[in-house]
Amino acid sequence: MPELRRDPIIGRWVIISTERGKRPDDFNLEKRSAKGGFCPFCEGNEDKTPPEVLAYRDPLSAKNTPGWKVRVVPNKFPALQIEGELERRGDGIYDMMRGVGAHEVLIESPDHNMQLANLPKDHVESVFWALRDRCIDLQKDSRFRYILIFKNRGEDAGASLEHSHIQLIATPIIPKRAMEELEGAEFHYKFKERCIFCDMIKQETEVQKRVIYSNRNFVAIAPYASRFPFESWILPLKHVSSFTKTTSEWLPDLADVLKTVLNRIDTVLDEPPFNFIIHTAPCNNLELDYYHWHIEVIPKLTRVAGFEWGSGFYINPTPPEDAAAALRQSDESG
Amino acid sequence: MPELRRDPIIGRWVIISTERGKRPDDFNLEKRSAKGGFCPFCEGNEDKTPPEVLAYRDPLSAKNTPGWKVRVVPNKFPALQIEGELERRGDGIYDMMRGVGAHEVLIESPDHNMQLANLPKDHVESVFWALRDRCIDLQKDSRFRYILIFKNRGEDAGASLEHSHIQLIATPIIPKRAMEELEGAEFHYKFKERCIFCDMIKQETEVQKRVIYSNRNFVAIAPYASRFPFESWILPLKHVSSFTKTTSEWLPDLADVLKTVLNRIDTVLDEPPFNFIIHTAPCNNLELDYYHWHIEVIPKLTRVAGFEWGSGFYINPTPPEDAAAALRQSDESG
Repeated sequence: MPELRRDPIIGRWVIISTERGKRPDDFNLEKRSAKGGFCPFCEGNEDKTPPEVLAYRDPLSAKNTPGWKVRVVPNKFPALQIEGELERRGDGIYDMMRGVGAHEVLIESPDHNMQLANLPKDHVESVFWALRDRCIDLQKDSRFRYILIFKNRGEDAGASLEHSHIQLIATPIIPKRAMEELEGAEFHYKFKERCIFCDMIKQETEVQKRVIYSNRNFVAIAPYASRFPFESWILPLKHVSSFTKTTSEWLPDLADVLKTVLNRIDTVLDEPPFNFIIHTAPCNNLELDYYHWHIEVIPKLTRVAGFEWGSGFYINPTPPEDAAAALRQSDESG
Repeated sequence: MPELRRDPIIGRWVIISTERGKRPDDFNLEKRSAKGGFCPFCEGNEDKTPPEVLAYRDPLSAKNTPGWKVRVVPNKFPALQIEGELERRGDGIYDMMRGVGAHEVLIESPDHNMQLANLPKDHVESVFWALRDRCIDLQKDSRFRYILIFKNRGEDAGASLEHSHIQLIATPIIPKRAMEELEGAEFHYKFKERCIFCDMIKQETEVQKRVIYSNRNFVAIAPYASRFPFESWILPLKHVSSFTKTTSEWLPDLADVLKTVLNRIDTVLDEPPFNFIIHTAPCNNLELDYYHWHIEVIPKLTRVAGFEWGSGFYINPTPPEDAAAALRQSDESG
């Protein structure tokens, strides 16, 4: 059973995998391992993953067989385990609990070589439908406080499988960055009685110089204090605090804006590794006046993250105004 | 002039380089560039760096010529610029100031192929003397709030030059992680009237299972809630809040513990890329009852940092107890 342990100084919870504990030699092995041939996410290999928890598929096809468009399965090597209670307890001055949670994988398409940005718009929309369906289901479990949705594309961004996929981790704690945003946004709200994200959207759409793209319901911007070159945020124009509260009528525009941003990043930066993370409200507090859900897309272009995540001090060599201009001017290729 | 910009939600200050702004193509170039032949840090090339601000050298040798043991020079491509006032101001809802600060490089030895861990103990001690001297000097500048000291070893850890070196950045703001630690430690102190780090040291030296090494004045541990495999912290056993307040009598033991930890990491993990960061008190508040300076060493073994720095949610596949055992049992090779 993995453990969740709390850093006693800054309060960050960390998952410590105690079972599949890596030994020094494992890291050397990892360096040497080549890209594998067999892919458990491809059509026809459905029996090589745990049984699906959700699939949008041909009504004539059977579960865990070919015929699906989007498929969600439990992670075969989960960071957290679904069974059991939390059992919060102390360990001298420290705090810990059992590593209870859900860890699922959304396989975006049956095609091994298809990238999310290149899927048809309605297919990307189906991906968001599936994510929202899974979130709504996981939120019902009272053990879970937060659902972290993220994508790693490319080995340098942490992807261990090439076949395009998105991960969901339901956690019994609120991840540190989410907590910081919630607290920071609440502080601003107390001061101004306005949502800081709504304020940002207002200023950005007026000034325009950091806007990458917008449609009826969403805007993509290069944030004012970008930590990374070409960091891009996607926000709903209207105040909504939880991704799960995004109405179905908005999902086509959400698919459009994500597809556009990812396509332009691929075009301008030559298909770089990237991560995106959905930042949303915690499970037990879905409607907040002060918080605004959004997606943060971070291309992995520089290797300088070393001391930066250690210090929280970031040096960004590309002004967001330049990044936005390059992405704004790029032709859509998808 | 670079700019310091503040994230309006979580309050993190970021350096945006506006002059040497990187264009999309620069990142492709970076990918392609091979390791260079010429090294500006090598003995004999002293005129290829900005003039030295400190050197421990043969008394008969002239400044900026061969004959030195440890040498500190301004960074040729500084992240912050030394001249000028801060000029804090607003930009609509945002906050910014001019990118004023110092950015220096400590070259650990004249020998291109020498690693910090392999230097003789008294030479490592000289490195710490030089770092302390530079900190004490930079702290006199009232524009600076914090001095960030860090090392990147290896390309994957962000080192752009192979020749072993340490960087110092004096900043007009307190970096986010340092601020979090200060606030977290102060919170604990208010509650318990004890330093949380002193509490940690007490528990760790009693329990022993996460202790890597200790000598008369320092202890190295694998922290309870390690974010990364083989993360190692070095702490003074006695309460001292600022690195600059470490007495000269302790510097031999500091050299000993750092050299030992780095050597063991090299032995056990086959000379991995790594970062270390000195976590210390801010310039204007050097003596704090609630804060305890320390060094955090982070080997770069996994590529999973992608979503982790984006979410603040870390999954560590190696329990710190296992990491400490492996490092404790390793023979010293240095």
